[in-house]
Amino acid sequence: MLYIVGLGLGGDRGVTVRGLDAVRRCARVYMEARTALLTLGIDGDPSSRLARLEMLYGNEVTVAGREIVEEESGDQILREATGADIAFLVVGHPFGSDEPSSKTTHTDLVVRAKKLGIEVKVIDSASVLNAIGACGLELHRYGEAITIPFFTETCKRDHFYQAIVNNRWLGLHTLCLLDIYAKEPILSESLRRGNKVYEPPRFRTVNTAISQLLEVLEMRGEPEPAYDEDSLCIGLARLGSDDEKIVAGPMRKLVDVDFGAPPHCLVIVGETTTVEEEMLEFYMIRS
Amino acid sequence: MLYIVGLGLGGDRGVTVRGLDAVRRCARVYMEARTALLTLGIDGDPSSRLARLEMLYGNEVTVAGREIVEEESGDQILREATGADIAFLVVGHPFGSDEPSSKTTHTDLVVRAKKLGIEVKVIDSASVLNAIGACGLELHRYGEAITIPFFTETCKRDHFYQAIVNNRWLGLHTLCLLDIYAKEPILSESLRRGNKVYEPPRFRTVNTAISQLLEVLEMRGEPEPAYDEDSLCIGLARLGSDDEKIVAGPMRKLVDVDFGAPPHCLVIVGETTTVEEEMLEFYMIRS
Repeated sequence: MLYIVGLGLGGDRGVTVRGLDAVRRCARVYMEARTALLTLGIDGDPSSRLARLEMLYGNEVTVAGREIVEEESGDQILREATGADIAFLVVGHPFGSDEPSSKTTHTDLVVRAKKLGIEVKVIDSASVLNAIGACGLELHRYGEAITIPFFTETCKRDHFYQAIVNNRWLGLHTLCLLDIYAKEPILSESLRRGNKVYEPPRFRTVNTAISQLLEVLEMRGEPEPAYDEDSLCIGLARLGSDDEKIVAGPMRKLVDVDFGAPPHCLVIVGETTTVEEEMLEFYMIRS
Repeated sequence: MLYIVGLGLGGDRGVTVRGLDAVRRCARVYMEARTALLTLGIDGDPSSRLARLEMLYGNEVTVAGREIVEEESGDQILREATGADIAFLVVGHPFGSDEPSSKTTHTDLVVRAKKLGIEVKVIDSASVLNAIGACGLELHRYGEAITIPFFTETCKRDHFYQAIVNNRWLGLHTLCLLDIYAKEPILSESLRRGNKVYEPPRFRTVNTAISQLLEVLEMRGEPEPAYDEDSLCIGLARLGSDDEKIVAGPMRKLVDVDFGAPPHCLVIVGETTTVEEEMLEFYMIRS
């Protein structure tokens, strides 16, 4: 049996009681690399945090590289799950954390397991898709969610723009997921050296996301843009943690707010109801 | 402090470790009536299930009527939370379970608390909005979620139809939430007797939802309807439970499938990717 266990948000205690039961009785427990990054952190002492997490989970935890999950050569987890109970830990919800831009997802892992006749049990937990409710906008009034990728000097893909146009036209809110790259292999270096060389992990902030959204407007020069620097947005950081931060305001003001440590996300506000407006008031930037 | 604690899905063990910590240290614990209905059930012996839940939660749990939460006269929870730590338990995610059709929501409770200067802590858990990922469709490819209300002989509101049109036009999936009415007061009886008289709880099934969707088509007689009886849908029951049931197929076949006990929900499938199609194959109706 393969258990894919959502760890929820805000650290190791976002796992459910049902998830904890499963993790405790599994023969082996893997944690996705991206999850390790978000759960154990990159600064300070990740190994002491791992020890604390292993204490809570009552089991040894092996951090799995991205290649273990995704590649043909790394069918290790699936091989083990044919003969034993194996847990695979992922931050947020097992499906909620699938990155829209990623070809290979946890759904793909489920498909591969099922094709091998392995029983799969997904254990739900919170993810940004429902925790975003904290800002006060009604969850069913969000349109398609988008991912804002990292812009580079040579690559500024703005394929997400049309979804914002659609959502705004329908009066819906837009959740902008901000990419986290964990252990992306550097292609040129990997080819040269013959084994994989990884980039350091990178996080996207609310500030760079807004800068890029405004840059897209300049690039496109639309006569009737879907948003502008006065559009009301909400920046959210560390959702579900004790130190979560939520600030609402026009893009031109939010771009300068310090949201602190990752992860971040951004909401472009659509049409609002009275209750939504009352909630937003608590988070509105005053300066 | 007012803790609004999401219990997640699939019974009492859907609560997170963080949520459990909060519930255990609170002076008083309330459970929403609708949550009690879904967590404790309506048949068999709810009181023995409540006793088991109180054992796990290490605290006495008071089932709160809808009026305690919503009405001016029932500010009891908020009054208590000014001087002590109070937990309010809700099924799913504290905001994810807000009913789109309901004027008064948990967001409203948060607004009222904050206006009284009460600190509020929302503890996330899974909800149908991310657990729906189990069917294999990518979560960010859902458009606006709709609620299909109960039709009566005299009232057949089809205000949700336009959202399906929009989602289909954009190639997005549509999540149809199926109303659960718990302790709705019967207006005429309540007025006559001078105190509130409640209807028995009612659940909507996948089958009646599809029947109503097809009835809407007949009523409207659109030349190019947003869907028809051959449209691919997915029926889901008891998401997150050990006995969850997922079946995919055209409306005309799904309408006859027995999904068993509530809660149910329905997805109208939009454009699909290869991985999505592979996952749907596992759930496709064969007959």
